[in-house]
Amino acid sequence: MKILALDSSGLVASVAVVEDDVLLAEYTVNYKKTHSQTLLPMLDEIRHMIDLDLDSIDAIAIAAGPGSFTGLRIGAATAKGLGLALNKPLVEVSTLEGLAYQLCGTDRLVCPLMDARRNQVYSGIYSFRPVAGEWQMDVVKEQCAVDISAMIEACNELGREVIFLGDGAPVYAGKLAEKMTVPYTFAPAHCNRQSAASVASLGAVYYAQGRVVSAAEHQPEYLRLSQAERERAQAERGTT
Amino acid sequence: MKILALDSSGLVASVAVVEDDVLLAEYTVNYKKTHSQTLLPMLDEIRHMIDLDLDSIDAIAIAAGPGSFTGLRIGAATAKGLGLALNKPLVEVSTLEGLAYQLCGTDRLVCPLMDARRNQVYSGIYSFRPVAGEWQMDVVKEQCAVDISAMIEACNELGREVIFLGDGAPVYAGKLAEKMTVPYTFAPAHCNRQSAASVASLGAVYYAQGRVVSAAEHQPEYLRLSQAERERAQAERGTT
Repeated sequence: MKILALDSSGLVASVAVVEDDVLLAEYTVNYKKTHSQTLLPMLDEIRHMIDLDLDSIDAIAIAAGPGSFTGLRIGAATAKGLGLALNKPLVEVSTLEGLAYQLCGTDRLVCPLMDARRNQVYSGIYSFRPVAGEWQMDVVKEQCAVDISAMIEACNELGREVIFLGDGAPVYAGKLAEKMTVPYTFAPAHCNRQSAASVASLGAVYYAQGRVVSAAEHQPEYLRLSQAERERAQAERGTT
Repeated sequence: MKILALDSSGLVASVAVVEDDVLLAEYTVNYKKTHSQTLLPMLDEIRHMIDLDLDSIDAIAIAAGPGSFTGLRIGAATAKGLGLALNKPLVEVSTLEGLAYQLCGTDRLVCPLMDARRNQVYSGIYSFRPVAGEWQMDVVKEQCAVDISAMIEACNELGREVIFLGDGAPVYAGKLAEKMTVPYTFAPAHCNRQSAASVASLGAVYYAQGRVVSAAEHQPEYLRLSQAERERAQAERGTT
């Protein structure tokens, strides 16, 4: 089974190819360039490097949100275009699950924090357990867009040690230090941001479970309204 | 602190740049191409992508062995050349520690297995613990070149759950199934082979501890004699 994965949900642009239990290639960049300028050239670069015949892939795993609205749309457009052209299914992987899956193998709770501005985070809580020699990820708290304080409260209530990661971790480090009552740590640099390798690896698990959609069906999961939608709703309620 | 890392110790060729707690770029390929053809072009590719001024890096982390003799020599030559030209120190990261560090955050023992042919593996055993909010990796069993059976015995004696990774894991899966008496699992695709991001991340820790060498001083740690050296030694003992 061969899975091509894309993640452009945040500042990171990342492309990877996994075949069975092996990562064939990953190209990840965390830089100010626009994803629309980087994502396809990165895919083309690794395609040449590993002589990848795009027809040989089984599915395209896409970091399906939450995240940057523009980033998610670039990722979705790219994945849909590839899926339609190649006639391959898409596997939607929650951006938060893709982030958390990098800590696969820990006994602690994993809490990715994606900065959503104005004290809000996209977050969720995940745990891991071995099942018949393989690692399975469980959702302890479903992904949500909430105030960072609410997320800290949710972690404290669970009473287990937590590993934080994501671009929200440094942003809210002060709040965590102030309010966390259970021990916690941060994931180090090689596994604390989006990675298409992780999306590909988890996407392969979902693909094996039949969790696919067509290119036409896929749409990003934003988890909240865009600024434009919020402002229109406010204007219609006469509360601007 | 900015660390450039290279790993060409096995089939994987990998280049990464880490700045403080963030991975700026990683390019990893696991393909049959020769590292001498891929490693520098990959570095050049990410250098352009993130507008990297090579003079701005603090050190070059290099997967220092064990591994493929030719692969290690290509990595060492590249790192030495860069270090000399840029006048930057090198940070030697054990290939096995770089592999194990990908499982950072687990409570289990981590045992990387690099296939060294003829039933031999390059291996070691590592564990993790949080120290003041940061993850520290401890060496439980020093890196060695041994028979796979001896390594399995070492794991069983420790009596703790183990996570295996590395290209030796699928090669010796049958032996593990037959002889392991403690529960064990395998690391999934996104974290079961060499990764320069992991080498960079661990290299940053070592750099902060002052564990550097000059480009002139660095030499790979092969852990055993090359085939040519073994054959000469045999011939000199008259046992060929």
